[in-house]
Amino acid sequence: MNYYEQHQADFLEGLKTFLRIPSISTLSENKPDMRRAAEFAVNELRAAGMTVAELIEGEGESNPLVYAEWLGAPGKPTILFYGHYDVQPPDPLDEWKSPPFEPEVRGDNIYARGACDDKGQVYIQIKAVEGLLKTAGKLPVNVKFLLEGEEETGGEHIEAYVKTRPPRLKADAAVVCDTEMFAPELPTICVGLRGMVYYELFVQGADHDLHSGVYGGAAPNPILAIAEILCALKDRAGRIQVPGFYDSVEPPSAKERAAWASLPFDEKEYTEKEMGAKELVGEPGVPLFERVWARPTVEIHGIRGGFTGEGAKTVIPARAVAKISTRLVASQTVDASVKLMQAAVKAACPRGVTAELKVLHAGEPSLTNPDNPFIHAAAEALKETFGKETVYIRSGGSIPIVGVFDRYLGIPSVMMGFGLPDDNLHAPNEKFHLPNFYRGIQAVARYLEILGR
Amino acid sequence: MNYYEQHQADFLEGLKTFLRIPSISTLSENKPDMRRAAEFAVNELRAAGMTVAELIEGEGESNPLVYAEWLGAPGKPTILFYGHYDVQPPDPLDEWKSPPFEPEVRGDNIYARGACDDKGQVYIQIKAVEGLLKTAGKLPVNVKFLLEGEEETGGEHIEAYVKTRPPRLKADAAVVCDTEMFAPELPTICVGLRGMVYYELFVQGADHDLHSGVYGGAAPNPILAIAEILCALKDRAGRIQVPGFYDSVEPPSAKERAAWASLPFDEKEYTEKEMGAKELVGEPGVPLFERVWARPTVEIHGIRGGFTGEGAKTVIPARAVAKISTRLVASQTVDASVKLMQAAVKAACPRGVTAELKVLHAGEPSLTNPDNPFIHAAAEALKETFGKETVYIRSGGSIPIVGVFDRYLGIPSVMMGFGLPDDNLHAPNEKFHLPNFYRGIQAVARYLEILGR
Repeated sequence: MNYYEQHQADFLEGLKTFLRIPSISTLSENKPDMRRAAEFAVNELRAAGMTVAELIEGEGESNPLVYAEWLGAPGKPTILFYGHYDVQPPDPLDEWKSPPFEPEVRGDNIYARGACDDKGQVYIQIKAVEGLLKTAGKLPVNVKFLLEGEEETGGEHIEAYVKTRPPRLKADAAVVCDTEMFAPELPTICVGLRGMVYYELFVQGADHDLHSGVYGGAAPNPILAIAEILCALKDRAGRIQVPGFYDSVEPPSAKERAAWASLPFDEKEYTEKEMGAKELVGEPGVPLFERVWARPTVEIHGIRGGFTGEGAKTVIPARAVAKISTRLVASQTVDASVKLMQAAVKAACPRGVTAELKVLHAGEPSLTNPDNPFIHAAAEALKETFGKETVYIRSGGSIPIVGVFDRYLGIPSVMMGFGLPDDNLHAPNEKFHLPNFYRGIQAVARYLEILGR
Repeated sequence: MNYYEQHQADFLEGLKTFLRIPSISTLSENKPDMRRAAEFAVNELRAAGMTVAELIEGEGESNPLVYAEWLGAPGKPTILFYGHYDVQPPDPLDEWKSPPFEPEVRGDNIYARGACDDKGQVYIQIKAVEGLLKTAGKLPVNVKFLLEGEEETGGEHIEAYVKTRPPRLKADAAVVCDTEMFAPELPTICVGLRGMVYYELFVQGADHDLHSGVYGGAAPNPILAIAEILCALKDRAGRIQVPGFYDSVEPPSAKERAAWASLPFDEKEYTEKEMGAKELVGEPGVPLFERVWARPTVEIHGIRGGFTGEGAKTVIPARAVAKISTRLVASQTVDASVKLMQAAVKAACPRGVTAELKVLHAGEPSLTNPDNPFIHAAAEALKETFGKETVYIRSGGSIPIVGVFDRYLGIPSVMMGFGLPDDNLHAPNEKFHLPNFYRGIQAVARYLEILGR
């Protein structure tokens, strides 16, 4: 048994400790947990043998960045590991089979908020480095870590920091472990990410709630108004109706389309088991992987207005609010898309109400050319560890830092992820497949060895 | 000073005690308060001098009815007073200037949940009878009371009770004090009420929440789906789009339309001050009073789905729910309208989701012919008390018991109400105009005297 096989129980215990910290970045009451999670990562990095491991404090209420380095391989490339220690809120709480911050192993999986997204994968990076340092006493390449605590809230502060091009972030490539494998046992590298703009839409009718008997037929209803605005953004078939929204969308190449079409895939299983849905929807005539990886979306994440308690209240409410996002693909840009959305909401706003569309956070889409040595080495390491040819896919999710690294540090990002499609990211019963956790650690270590040859 | 003028301070204190009981019938945690409010009314009726005053217990979890009688005027007509001791929920709580169950007098008004709807008006009936009994030792006509505690939740139990045609409810007319005056100082009798069906609409997509990055473009979104269904029920101009919904609507007579057109009315004041709105909406080409009194509506009272907390969560939720009502007018019927609504929701339900429309409660519309002696006497009593000619209007609200009295007891209802248009029924800062409270007591007493002539 090598170091990695010998220490699986320790790795699991360490991960559980990390997962017990409810580092929910969207909730202000969890502020102290953010710092606890960051300090946990610093301590782990120091214990792993990194020569520097410290917090980088940001301005005001920001969550600290975690920085670490080991630079004892002169002449060798420098790799910058990126991950995030913050997690999504766990609600709806009553749908979790075990509490979200009390990690539980059931079968081959560990269940907890953040198990896969992204604490489990951050821990893979740390433990890979630890194994090399504990056994060889050194790393085959130079390694830096930059972890953030605001990925789930838009990553504003890490972006501001990277934009200053700090000398300590100088590197040849970034390694991002925050994506998923296309299928169990199928090593996967992600080369494209959708961008995102997250909005809040406020609609205001009268300045106070009104009795629907007395005023129904004359009073503006902000709930119906917000429904009308939402329906104007997308038609019933699934096509975005925001004028101009598709104009700058780059279609995937014929080669990429052909590769996607040959991926092993069971649509019935995906629809019914993984999603738990009756049928797939979306733009007519566009293949599934293109819809979720290479086409923009408009989604509604939440809506609230009026009386939603037990029983009946015959009120015409004064206001309603919805949370909306658009996913963007190359070569759409955040700024242009926001202008189009704001114009569309304005045009769709019915009489008698006012509508305000506010941007909460945003990130640009990114698309990486897979023909570079850092991605080739990753494909080789994954193939060796998993025993299968590595496939290239895109992800429909958004990791804004990838575009930021490209633009401000001039480095490509290698997206080597170990999640699985049914890991319930952002949903109840998030899990991480433990065989992938252990193999992920070995694959990342092997990657560093290949780069150091 | 007569009895009524002498006892204004007592009446106000008694009303405050009644208003302090949070008898919210829609909330199960307020169950004990329902009984406290009913017992308060029984004690007041007994103290007023009614010979019988007692609770009528219903089945299971129902709130008791309050029954009282004084039958010492043989040969004279019998009047059945109706009112309700339950109130609407007070939310949104943070918009109240004083707490909803701590009545506060500011200027000429008393502010509290139920001040006008309907505890203040129930108290008018009780105190009118008390004054006559305390001063003359008898009433000019026979009087019965039937108060309920479920008006705001649909009045299912009082309806079931009245349907059995209990002998003790035998009467010549009902007097309902639960409507409003058209304008301050303008005595008003209401001769038409809209009916209502209150629904909950559930829409289910996948069986669990999904990550919008991973599945956006393929997963059904129940929030957008519920928005699509709501928009299919009504067009942007305000016309109901449920096929057949207007078919059995009786237009008001030319005489009624002319009377409404001559009511004193300032549309700008109504829109901006009373409603706090920018402009009126609703069916194009239909005059305002016809829209709110004589046309059916579809209104959305509440909506909830997905993540609505602080910040951002990129989830495609599994379900969404909305509270909806339709107001009905003569000669629409509850049963026929429910069938039309269910067919419309089914037809509008988009792919990938299921929709269920559930009826929470319902009441038929009613329209009374004003040419009867009980209404003539009321018009006379109001004119004497307020010093102005009484006007006849309809109300857009729903008081299902009026149709039930008509159908099962064969008696007309005299709707003599003392609320004002800006009393904020069902909304924060509900109030009752104290001059109307005191004059209402005298008008009801005078009404009984006129009937006893």
